[in-house]
Amino acid sequence: MAMMQECMEACSAVSMCATMCADADMGEGMGTCAAMCSNMADVATTTMRMMMRPTGYDRGVLTSMMTACMTMGEACAAECRTHAEMSEHCRICMMACDAMVEVMGKMMSTMSTTS
Amino acid sequence: MAMMQECMEACSAVSMCATMCADADMGEGMGTCAAMCSNMADVATTTMRMMMRPTGYDRGVLTSMMTACMTMGEACAAECRTHAEMSEHCRICMMACDAMVEVMGKMMSTMSTTS
Amino acid sequence: MAMMQECMEACSAVSMCATMCADADMGEGMGTCAAMCSNMADVATTTMRMMMRPTGYDRGVLTSMMTACMTMGEACAAECRTHAEMSEHCRICMMACDAMVEVMGKMMSTMSTTS
Amino acid sequence: MAMMQECMEACSAVSMCATMCADADMGEGMGTCAAMCSNMADVATTTMRMMMRPTGYDRGVLTSMMTACMTMGEACAAECRTHAEMSEHCRICMMACDAMVEVMGKMMSTMSTTS
Repeated sequence: MAMMQECMEACSAVSMCATMCADADMGEGMGTCAAMCSNMADVATTTMRMMMRPTGYDRGVLTSMMTACMTMGEACAAECRTHAEMSEHCRICMMACDAMVEVMGKMMSTMSTTS
Repeated sequence: MAMMQECMEACSAVSMCATMCADADMGEGMGTCAAMCSNMADVATTTMRMMMRPTGYDRGVLTSMMTACMTMGEACAAECRTHAEMSEHCRICMMACDAMVEVMGKMMSTMSTTS
Repeated sequence: MAMMQECMEACSAVSMCATMCADADMGEGMGTCAAMCSNMADVATTTMRMMMRPTGYDRGVLTSMMTACMTMGEACAAECRTHAEMSEHCRICMMACDAMVEVMGKMMSTMSTTS
Repeated sequence: MAMMQECMEACSAVSMCATMCADADMGEGMGTCAAMCSNMADVATTTMRMMMRPTGYDRGVLTSMMTACMTMGEACAAECRTHAEMSEHCRICMMACDAMVEVMGKMMSTMSTTS
């Protein structure tokens, strides 16, 4: 439960950082990064909301959504990493994605051991 | 490309049907169905938006998001199916989910053959 | 009720057109248009969802949300209009916004006469 | 700018509290509250995202969106207040809405004085 809480907070942070990174990218002509961050923000928001709805809990659904969120988080972090030297918002977004992928990975392994 | 278009339209239909089904469920005290449909609406909206952003296209990310959306679609359809006899909105939502899962499954197999 | 249905469909169309316009803008370096269309897509989606939840209906809330959506629609259409000659996606998004503002304006006047 | 930051955080808090309140309401058969909180979560998320996109800033649009968000916040708080005695999640959601309305009201008056 504490781990779920950590995941929600990590998703919330990513959702904010990616929305702001996307906006800044738009103003700076970094199209791919802007579009990936827009996807990232939507995926993180949806994953967070799913975690906030225990009434609708389905283990298989949550697991596959977390897998999608982690895949997206790795791709978004990789894209942001290429601009992290020169762009503060990319560096912040990258770090938020990395942190989310890590905590979500931990939760995934806990979920698979506790059946 | 035509298949992607079909997927987007199927996601849009699910997103609407699930939002309306969730609202009706809330008024009728069907908690689990309401919460699963709320999740379904968010997942379908996010998947649709990802498909509508070719600039941010990443094959691995899209595949994992489609997997999550299909898993959610199957779970939501299964839940709605249990009320489909007595509840029109559940029957409609179930059919929209089934149709989305089918067309998305076709797109997945096309994506895996054309590398 | 038929008018509400028309509004939902207009919001859905705007939500799609604006998401696609934003993505294309990102790839073409049109930052302001991309960010306004991203806002437009979120506002149209939220307005549509509110209309799809009669259980949570509140006349004052819906009226103020429709006002925000129309204000956003006019601003987004104005921005897209400046690129409409050269950019197909802006022309399509502009038309969808114009149509939504029109049908929503009609619904607003119906709502104010039928108290 | 510090005030904008406060507004974003207040929107984020409301978006989370309202999502969790809606889910709990669904499980407890409180339909109206569930649907209003679902609307509140969407409106708060959209308002927060708009604030996070300075590239797409439009004063008139932001003002009307904040007005809609405050109207929604007052209605949601009023609904949650009726269950606040017996329901912890309603009390938390009500307080988050009240806090958001207050800080957003302050920002609105700042925006109208500084032209």
